[in-house]
Amino acid sequence: MAKDKKQPRPKAETPKGFRDYFGAEVSERAEMLQKIAGVYHRYGFDALESSAVETVEALGKFLPDVDRPNEGVFAWQEDAADEKSGEMPGDWLALRYDLTAPLARVYAQHRNDLPIPYRRYAMGPVWRNEKPGPGRFRQFYQCDADTVGTTSMAADAEVCAMLADTLEEVGIPRGDYLVRVNNRKVLNGIIESVFSIQLDNAFPDGLSPMGNQSATLLQERMASLTDDVLRTLDKHDKIGDEGVAELLGGGRKDQSGAFIPGLDLPTYIIDGFLAFINARGESNEETIQRLREVVAHSDLGVEGVNELEQIAGLLEAGGYGLDRIVIDPSVVRGLGYYTGPVFEAELTFEIFDEKGRKRQFGSVAGGGRYDDLVKRFTGQAVPATGVSIGVDRLLAALREKGRIGGTVVGPVVVTVMDRDRMADYQDMVGKLRKANIRAEIYLGNPKNFGNQMKYADRRGSPLAVIAGSDEFDRDVVQIKDLILGAQIAENATLEEWKQRPSQFEVPRDQLVAKVKEILDGQG
Amino acid sequence: MAKDKKQPRPKAETPKGFRDYFGAEVSERAEMLQKIAGVYHRYGFDALESSAVETVEALGKFLPDVDRPNEGVFAWQEDAADEKSGEMPGDWLALRYDLTAPLARVYAQHRNDLPIPYRRYAMGPVWRNEKPGPGRFRQFYQCDADTVGTTSMAADAEVCAMLADTLEEVGIPRGDYLVRVNNRKVLNGIIESVFSIQLDNAFPDGLSPMGNQSATLLQERMASLTDDVLRTLDKHDKIGDEGVAELLGGGRKDQSGAFIPGLDLPTYIIDGFLAFINARGESNEETIQRLREVVAHSDLGVEGVNELEQIAGLLEAGGYGLDRIVIDPSVVRGLGYYTGPVFEAELTFEIFDEKGRKRQFGSVAGGGRYDDLVKRFTGQAVPATGVSIGVDRLLAALREKGRIGGTVVGPVVVTVMDRDRMADYQDMVGKLRKANIRAEIYLGNPKNFGNQMKYADRRGSPLAVIAGSDEFDRDVVQIKDLILGAQIAENATLEEWKQRPSQFEVPRDQLVAKVKEILDGQG
Repeated sequence: MAKDKKQPRPKAETPKGFRDYFGAEVSERAEMLQKIAGVYHRYGFDALESSAVETVEALGKFLPDVDRPNEGVFAWQEDAADEKSGEMPGDWLALRYDLTAPLARVYAQHRNDLPIPYRRYAMGPVWRNEKPGPGRFRQFYQCDADTVGTTSMAADAEVCAMLADTLEEVGIPRGDYLVRVNNRKVLNGIIESVFSIQLDNAFPDGLSPMGNQSATLLQERMASLTDDVLRTLDKHDKIGDEGVAELLGGGRKDQSGAFIPGLDLPTYIIDGFLAFINARGESNEETIQRLREVVAHSDLGVEGVNELEQIAGLLEAGGYGLDRIVIDPSVVRGLGYYTGPVFEAELTFEIFDEKGRKRQFGSVAGGGRYDDLVKRFTGQAVPATGVSIGVDRLLAALREKGRIGGTVVGPVVVTVMDRDRMADYQDMVGKLRKANIRAEIYLGNPKNFGNQMKYADRRGSPLAVIAGSDEFDRDVVQIKDLILGAQIAENATLEEWKQRPSQFEVPRDQLVAKVKEILDGQG
Repeated sequence: MAKDKKQPRPKAETPKGFRDYFGAEVSERAEMLQKIAGVYHRYGFDALESSAVETVEALGKFLPDVDRPNEGVFAWQEDAADEKSGEMPGDWLALRYDLTAPLARVYAQHRNDLPIPYRRYAMGPVWRNEKPGPGRFRQFYQCDADTVGTTSMAADAEVCAMLADTLEEVGIPRGDYLVRVNNRKVLNGIIESVFSIQLDNAFPDGLSPMGNQSATLLQERMASLTDDVLRTLDKHDKIGDEGVAELLGGGRKDQSGAFIPGLDLPTYIIDGFLAFINARGESNEETIQRLREVVAHSDLGVEGVNELEQIAGLLEAGGYGLDRIVIDPSVVRGLGYYTGPVFEAELTFEIFDEKGRKRQFGSVAGGGRYDDLVKRFTGQAVPATGVSIGVDRLLAALREKGRIGGTVVGPVVVTVMDRDRMADYQDMVGKLRKANIRAEIYLGNPKNFGNQMKYADRRGSPLAVIAGSDEFDRDVVQIKDLILGAQIAENATLEEWKQRPSQFEVPRDQLVAKVKEILDGQG
């Protein structure tokens, strides 16, 4: 005790980049996730909640070193396994940074007990050890659904359909969203043909003198070019065809006048990329036909187009029209990570950004097919496809659309006029709750009635119940309509004030009925 | 790539003491927590989800040291705030070990914006850096509700009532649970009188020569005696009145014959403790009357009894009878931590333990009043009272009672006989889902039909839909009732086999109707 006083008081703060969620923020998210889980369940997906803590070894990607074990993840070392000798160093543990790395570990660990293909969904917080900034947090929610263990395009089509259903289920009306589908293989096909044409030109007889070393070099050059092309195509919505053509070709002057060197690709290849990104037609058939022309010379590209065609066919059979899901080669985001089909869900309604400019709400979910999910663990390649919903962005969209957060109704507050009648107040509040009405007794110091009304105000209470000795003597209660009261106080004329009383006296046994009546009227 | 092959494969395992939750385990818990949140909400409690990561400074209790920063919590040090100079050491962060320490931090941080009193509930995982053992995990769920900022016994009564309502809401029938209420002040009152009588004997003129130093000494002796008494009383249900009397008095031989020294308290004090722990009468009034006699000489004790009387009165007014909530001084668990009223919810039905012996299911929730929640942060004493539900134990109880987990129904599986007809299968599964039937297409390699049936079995599917080219030609589908099929396969006679077909052929446009009919029959 005496010791405590000497220590400085701890700061009452979350660590930097972390935050708390209060009241409606928590329940609205829970409600949205519950609706999403309902759709996923209907599609045959099973819930999975993996441990929040993984070994750094199993998480992969981030490897600990002695100086900076926290690169990108929150990591720490376990105490030595043998505490007495202290010789065996403990494992490095870390908080999961996404829900995919744990899925890989779970699938590898439990693959003999899981149905294959394995459809699973997961929802929960993930943690990133990054520099926090405004609106950038180090703990946030993810909500993923993946199908592991099948190469069938039906799995990809299913994920797209499920995504569309999910958006409608949580309250985004049809017409306000669009799921766009692209395929990484098409882009890779175009890049492949760049190289095959170059090789053909160099070795027209088809006999390439390359050994293993130059094959690796070629791979590296292709990977590097792919990254550059992706980065360039991703700017298409800002700089248009012309800008993209310049950056893929001889270079471009940016707005400041600075010259950005280009990739120096030949014109017919640049045309190929532009044809790819602009291939979306009036119908999926038209889009696919255009893509076929673009990639005619690449087996991989043709494979990608065939996959898109299969997905389009399955979605059409499922009744998902172009107003909900569309093949759109302009989807670039996500192409970098995935290996086959990719999907992105955009909300198409307009909002005003921080600077007051109108813009589309934008992406709320994305996903695609990725290979080798568990290869690190087992050596076996296991194909998978899935989607991740941006929980915070989707919640923000629902708030924007007024689907949630419009009116948070607080509890009915039973005020305390007479401390000796707590049993009576308890009786009243109990009856309200039994009628499924959110209600509470004021539990602070009741002496100052004004404080009770201030409390009711802070709670967002729709009405207050008031009973003092006079009311108890006459077996009545006063009910004050706080919402009407606030409206009247703000802008009513004297006439209205008289005509619309906001306080009612009712016999005590009619308390519940009258409260219900007022709440229904307010609703 | 080449590098990968040289590295040993990572182990696909959760860290020791952590686990994954699959399917029904996840959804059953989510459903239970949702019901609990519903009751809490009706009582006016607001949701709070605090950050999972706190500064070690804010968590308190556990302080980091350089050698073993992980004592009890999972902790790690942030990278230096100023990366360039590397001079300012980063904060120590840790995963929360319960939901109360974060509540203290949140209340101190946001107290100017929160309604006071502040009723909040919180649900989520907490982490303990403890040695894992069978059934002991280092990550588990807690579910708490607390009222902060009021000394009113109505807050304590409310928490007890809410606990009873909650248990019924999740599926524990009335009669199968009992909320028992005790008060730490009564026990403290008895201990206080031990010392006051001793002092009176030593200084009959009432003038104690004690300076500050001996006052501290006296406090320490009282605290130490309290701990000893609590430990002894907690053994009452095992060793009975006689055993407790021996341990409070001259000592006791245990079963092995070893002698355990006693506390050497005088007989009339021992009688006081025994009277306390056995004070539960036929009614709360009787219990309270008995307690009054026990603590007549202690102001603190009388205060405790008065508090119990208030709680009993409020609960009676709320219609909570002795079959749901009862004043019971034999509740010892939890007394150690709390400062006023304490509550414990026990499930009273019997189960068989690991050794096949019958015993009561036991405690699933506990709580009470605790002071100085935020004093560490602000210097101000803030009273609080609350309850914590043992999420895993309550789930186990519901499983035990057959309320959950009885029949996990898997999805309807639409099998794939003909890969070229995927669009048709897609159409079928889409129609089933639109009718709110959980359904999926088999997405594995369809070549081996036996594998598809094995998959359906592993998924717990109630029925499978089968259509090959013959069925498509005739515009029909086959529906196989897998549950009936399994029953028949197990124990039907040939007659029954003939009479109860488990496979039906229906026109394709009657698929949904027939599936519904079969599912309804199975349910």
